[in-house]
Amino acid sequence: MDLRTIEWKNNGIKIIDQTKLPGELKYMYIRDLKSLWRAIKELKVRGAPALGAAAAWGIYLGIKNSRAGNFGEFSRELHKAARYIASSRPTARNLFWGIERMCCVALRNKYKPISAIKRLLFKEAQKLIEEDRLACRRIGHYGAKLIKDKDTILTICNAGILATIDYGTALGVIYKAKQGGKRLKVYACETRPLLQGARLTTWELKKKGIDVTLICDNMAATLMQQGKINKVIAGADRIAADGDAANKIGTYNLAVLCHYHNIPFYIAAPHSTFDLTIKTGRDIPIEERKAQEVTELFFKRPITAKGIKVFNPAFDVTPHNLITAIITDKGVIRPPYRRNIAKILNG
Amino acid sequence: MDLRTIEWKNNGIKIIDQTKLPGELKYMYIRDLKSLWRAIKELKVRGAPALGAAAAWGIYLGIKNSRAGNFGEFSRELHKAARYIASSRPTARNLFWGIERMCCVALRNKYKPISAIKRLLFKEAQKLIEEDRLACRRIGHYGAKLIKDKDTILTICNAGILATIDYGTALGVIYKAKQGGKRLKVYACETRPLLQGARLTTWELKKKGIDVTLICDNMAATLMQQGKINKVIAGADRIAADGDAANKIGTYNLAVLCHYHNIPFYIAAPHSTFDLTIKTGRDIPIEERKAQEVTELFFKRPITAKGIKVFNPAFDVTPHNLITAIITDKGVIRPPYRRNIAKILNG
Repeated sequence: MDLRTIEWKNNGIKIIDQTKLPGELKYMYIRDLKSLWRAIKELKVRGAPALGAAAAWGIYLGIKNSRAGNFGEFSRELHKAARYIASSRPTARNLFWGIERMCCVALRNKYKPISAIKRLLFKEAQKLIEEDRLACRRIGHYGAKLIKDKDTILTICNAGILATIDYGTALGVIYKAKQGGKRLKVYACETRPLLQGARLTTWELKKKGIDVTLICDNMAATLMQQGKINKVIAGADRIAADGDAANKIGTYNLAVLCHYHNIPFYIAAPHSTFDLTIKTGRDIPIEERKAQEVTELFFKRPITAKGIKVFNPAFDVTPHNLITAIITDKGVIRPPYRRNIAKILNG
Repeated sequence: MDLRTIEWKNNGIKIIDQTKLPGELKYMYIRDLKSLWRAIKELKVRGAPALGAAAAWGIYLGIKNSRAGNFGEFSRELHKAARYIASSRPTARNLFWGIERMCCVALRNKYKPISAIKRLLFKEAQKLIEEDRLACRRIGHYGAKLIKDKDTILTICNAGILATIDYGTALGVIYKAKQGGKRLKVYACETRPLLQGARLTTWELKKKGIDVTLICDNMAATLMQQGKINKVIAGADRIAADGDAANKIGTYNLAVLCHYHNIPFYIAAPHSTFDLTIKTGRDIPIEERKAQEVTELFFKRPITAKGIKVFNPAFDVTPHNLITAIITDKGVIRPPYRRNIAKILNG
């Protein structure tokens, strides 16, 4: 299987429409910003690293047909696109990181002709994607060393190929460990409300030949109680300077369960997911999504009476004291996090 | 609202078909054992206390048309019905308790005419149901004293009217506290895989005028982290002599979260849910149910690729050290549990 979640092709952003999985592996082309915004909002493309790539290509989409006569005009168009893309989802750091990298390239080259800046922006998006591909493989390389033969690993949501360009962060660690000859079992939390674990992770792991078993989110505690889980590895959407990590709702729950059951809890994420301007997890913006995601399951058929109130945060924040280590493309970061994150990311 | 989950009417067991809720409040009559077995297995009637009543009426159904000429023959028919009903679901203690009570009445009256024994069995089922109604109100009475004005309470599954005859255990505590003038908020865990929290608890609480908000099971940790939960109250399906309590899958998870966040965790259950022949929770039989409950959500439409392995235990066991107190109809039981359970239940 050679899957690619996102790439530039035929003058547009080609993505796997992840809302169609696992029923159908369907690709779609995005050729305007509105479609991109909707694809991000509706989770047709999701996962922090993949959103970084989507944002970078989105910026390029936003300016590639620009007829701006000077940089000021061009810059206004660029920043309009940037603000629009940035308004799609608030939590994943990589989305903003992708936008910022593109804006910086434009600014650094402001004295060049607009046509040259456009070419440089296209190259920057390509470069960012190549870097992400490499970063995932390096996460896999560092993370696999933490995995023992016959480990059983629990994961949540999808931090695999479908969350990145083509390899994965948390699942990248699993792929690399398997490639190194380790025999592994994986339990996948279904990850309510949008079931990325059930729909995407089991599909992806099965395709990659990994022994995977699906559970409902509320069954993880029982598995741990029965001694069946050796490690939990989750991805991240944004990591603060102190190591507090926002990730899919339910991740914090798993971290508390790991703490109680003495099981190592790992976060796997590229350096682009860190946000050193945010001191602690308390300041990470958490997206709340609409009630229907909970009340209508996945099929637009109600499971509750009308008008039931719902609390539906898409992410939670795991405080750094519950994280055994953060597996990054620059190495494995362990406590004390504030110091070691600064050292490794700036080093 | 004057709901009754189960009663004897028109020569049959009249139940609310809970698989139709909340879309439709539909009653059904059960007039043979096979239909009863299926109704229990398929959760048309569910909840430990309601299963006790279903079992008692089931025994009566099994023998009411008996043409046995002597007690030996009658007893064989009775025990055949008992074994059949007992094979429907393994975990809820009340199911077996109901069966045992009925069998005892028959045995105690073995020298009476068969027609008289039948009448006595009918009366015993009625008595058992009246006792359960009273027990729930007493649970409410004792439990409400633990509730403070403006408490926010988290619950899981449905331990309300729909799990009992007409009042509830965990939700009975909430009803009684509200009746006493306390202002309460309730969060209901949706309770995957069969969504009893989303489908039944929010429906029931809303009908009773209780402020209820629905969450996915994996969101409870976040609410606790944000300081929004004052107490967790859950029902139980079977409680061992040491206080270990089996309840709907996800309950143990909540107990661990309460422990970590210093939140009181209560179990509410009538004395009929205790099984003093079982020393610890390790020996409570835990039902595993079919994979489709997880992979097809509630609508018989797949959310996973075909052939994905699933782990689907219907219950988990919360060790007594995580339980702040057990609210029973005989009073509130606190640690040390082994001693206090024996004292209060036998007292």
